[in-house]
Amino acid sequence: MFSATEAERLIFTLIDPLGEVETISLAGVGCLGRVLAASVTSQLDFPHWDNSAMDGYAVRACDVEKAPTTLEVIEEIPAGKKPEKAVKAGQAARILTGAMLHDGADAVVMQEETTREANRVTILQVPRTQSFVRHRGSFYQAGATLLEPGQLIAPPEVALLAAAQQTEVSGYRRPRVAILSTGSELVRPDQPIGPGQIVDSNQYALAALVTQAGAQAVPLGSIQDERAVVKDAIASALTQADMVISTGGVSVGDYDYIDAVLEELGATLHIRSVAVKPGKPLTVASFDNKTYFGLPGNPASAMVGFWRFVGPAIAKLSGAVGPWGPTFVWAEATSVLAAGGKRETYLWGLLAVGEEGYAFGRAAGSHSSGNLVNLANTSGLGVVPVGQTLIEVGQPVQVLKIR
Amino acid sequence: MFSATEAERLIFTLIDPLGEVETISLAGVGCLGRVLAASVTSQLDFPHWDNSAMDGYAVRACDVEKAPTTLEVIEEIPAGKKPEKAVKAGQAARILTGAMLHDGADAVVMQEETTREANRVTILQVPRTQSFVRHRGSFYQAGATLLEPGQLIAPPEVALLAAAQQTEVSGYRRPRVAILSTGSELVRPDQPIGPGQIVDSNQYALAALVTQAGAQAVPLGSIQDERAVVKDAIASALTQADMVISTGGVSVGDYDYIDAVLEELGATLHIRSVAVKPGKPLTVASFDNKTYFGLPGNPASAMVGFWRFVGPAIAKLSGAVGPWGPTFVWAEATSVLAAGGKRETYLWGLLAVGEEGYAFGRAAGSHSSGNLVNLANTSGLGVVPVGQTLIEVGQPVQVLKIR
Repeated sequence: MFSATEAERLIFTLIDPLGEVETISLAGVGCLGRVLAASVTSQLDFPHWDNSAMDGYAVRACDVEKAPTTLEVIEEIPAGKKPEKAVKAGQAARILTGAMLHDGADAVVMQEETTREANRVTILQVPRTQSFVRHRGSFYQAGATLLEPGQLIAPPEVALLAAAQQTEVSGYRRPRVAILSTGSELVRPDQPIGPGQIVDSNQYALAALVTQAGAQAVPLGSIQDERAVVKDAIASALTQADMVISTGGVSVGDYDYIDAVLEELGATLHIRSVAVKPGKPLTVASFDNKTYFGLPGNPASAMVGFWRFVGPAIAKLSGAVGPWGPTFVWAEATSVLAAGGKRETYLWGLLAVGEEGYAFGRAAGSHSSGNLVNLANTSGLGVVPVGQTLIEVGQPVQVLKIR
Repeated sequence: MFSATEAERLIFTLIDPLGEVETISLAGVGCLGRVLAASVTSQLDFPHWDNSAMDGYAVRACDVEKAPTTLEVIEEIPAGKKPEKAVKAGQAARILTGAMLHDGADAVVMQEETTREANRVTILQVPRTQSFVRHRGSFYQAGATLLEPGQLIAPPEVALLAAAQQTEVSGYRRPRVAILSTGSELVRPDQPIGPGQIVDSNQYALAALVTQAGAQAVPLGSIQDERAVVKDAIASALTQADMVISTGGVSVGDYDYIDAVLEELGATLHIRSVAVKPGKPLTVASFDNKTYFGLPGNPASAMVGFWRFVGPAIAKLSGAVGPWGPTFVWAEATSVLAAGGKRETYLWGLLAVGEEGYAFGRAAGSHSSGNLVNLANTSGLGVVPVGQTLIEVGQPVQVLKIR
């Protein structure tokens, strides 16, 4: 049985970025959350030309070495227009924030430090050393790299792509992740629940988790625990997706055929169980260029297995640069966290930002892997390491962020 | 001029949750990121019936008080079926994880602690105090509240809604947020850039930010800095959206009419500037039931103003329970953070999780409000408070998380 860290390391070695490239439009917000497949350069300097950082007057610095000094205002133009005249000795030009600096001028005096009368402006104070000129190319020069491949596109990157006039960029195709639930006890949420039956909530939870991870969920519903059915379903899932996640059928029960079926389908089995709680019966197998994750059927186990192992694998598959997660932060425990000590144990609860840093309190109620009621509205998984059975109130605890 | 904290407090008093309710389907993943408008209860107990937490044998606890003990196996049924027989003295039933417990049985013996021969099973060890039975209603009892209004729907809530067969839920309509750029210097990313012109990147960045905040972006493009044009555009924006964000036109320039225009349109002006850098010229005005935010035109100022003030306002407007953000965490500074000391200063950079907690390093290059190049690929805004001019390497810094 692998430790969580060993399993994580092995999974990352199995996953290669998908690497299929497509054109992504900047229009709308469809590029949000996508991953760049090529570096982005621009033919523009940033700023595109010398411009003013202030509303005020463009001047020659040598004309305002003493104050007060009165200058002739030769021009006054709004932003977006090219100045028509040059500023010469004894002259100034009215300028607004962002507007192009006039030829001859090399400094801007803030409007607040001037008085204006007709076409004359009096500079009340000698400008400070700062010239309030943003020089062409001072932020970035044309031809250098703006963004690297593997960059996840969030709002700041959207802004930069727009500014650099990159209306179409090269991005990686989103991974397609098939979701398959196995279990003859499963019904859909809109079906009546007979004795011994249960709703296949994993199908919905995993579709949401896969979507949140930036991949395209391919929900395939639930199937009976029958060997031939399971084999056909996995074979079909592999033709439709880059990764297959199944839930159920990975425990020791008599109706669990999946491992054998995977080998028949040509898979190499890498992981059969991991020393985590919940979620010990985790199966990881690889096909030529696809990966299979078999998560336990208990809802808390399935979700914890996703957060700990599958989500990060999807992040790597998507082509994003690492670290691929999960994100662990340190918090102060505000409730006692107890565990068996044999497996790395995840207890769900609220991760809150306090004055002194994060605080983590365990959710009330059962932490049974079959309970999903008190997993709702939680924001972190407090980790009790192997070999430890108790984290006391006030002690530090590592928390896997789930929101 | 308001402090950042005063401005934030005032903005929250201006915003009432939208409160318009619509039906949201659990199908697909359209419910992800939506806000519940009503509490959710279920007519189901969780678990729905006594069931097994293990693969093993359902027994009467009183029959296995000593070991080894051999019992007759009366039945063996898969998950999802109702047991047909009751377990009587000297009997056991084969049971799988999640399956309904047989009448008469009150404990489960793990499969690993048994040997089986034909229709007889030998219990090798006296079961520990734990019965491995999940009792009906032990997680949650029918009729109690599962989820409260204001809950943001993330994957664990999707799982719970599915499990409780809530295929349609009552949710708040997403707020519509209009985005308007003012500035005669602005062109679209697909237009040639003339002298003195610049791409309206704010339109794209804000659409992405608004979408990320869970609202519906209504992008209205850019308009000329002309009083009549601006007035018409804001009036039109107010008819299309619950909130209007404009960029530009809120500084002291001669072409900035927006404040006067807002008053003509019947607005109450609440905030004209905030002691933050970048982003000081922030205008906040309210109409009867709508809010207007006037952000500066410089791209870094506009984005910082959104993260600090507008995003949290959208979160409250959406009906989500607080805290509405932004999220501040403490980090160790890994680079010097310098500021003027007069305004709360935000310096962008990388917030990384290290062994000891968060570390924050300032992005290289200019932190001019006109620079958006080095804002890309950053993950936090390091805060230098008013009255402080320097945070040294190794000192704690509060960081506003932007990813």
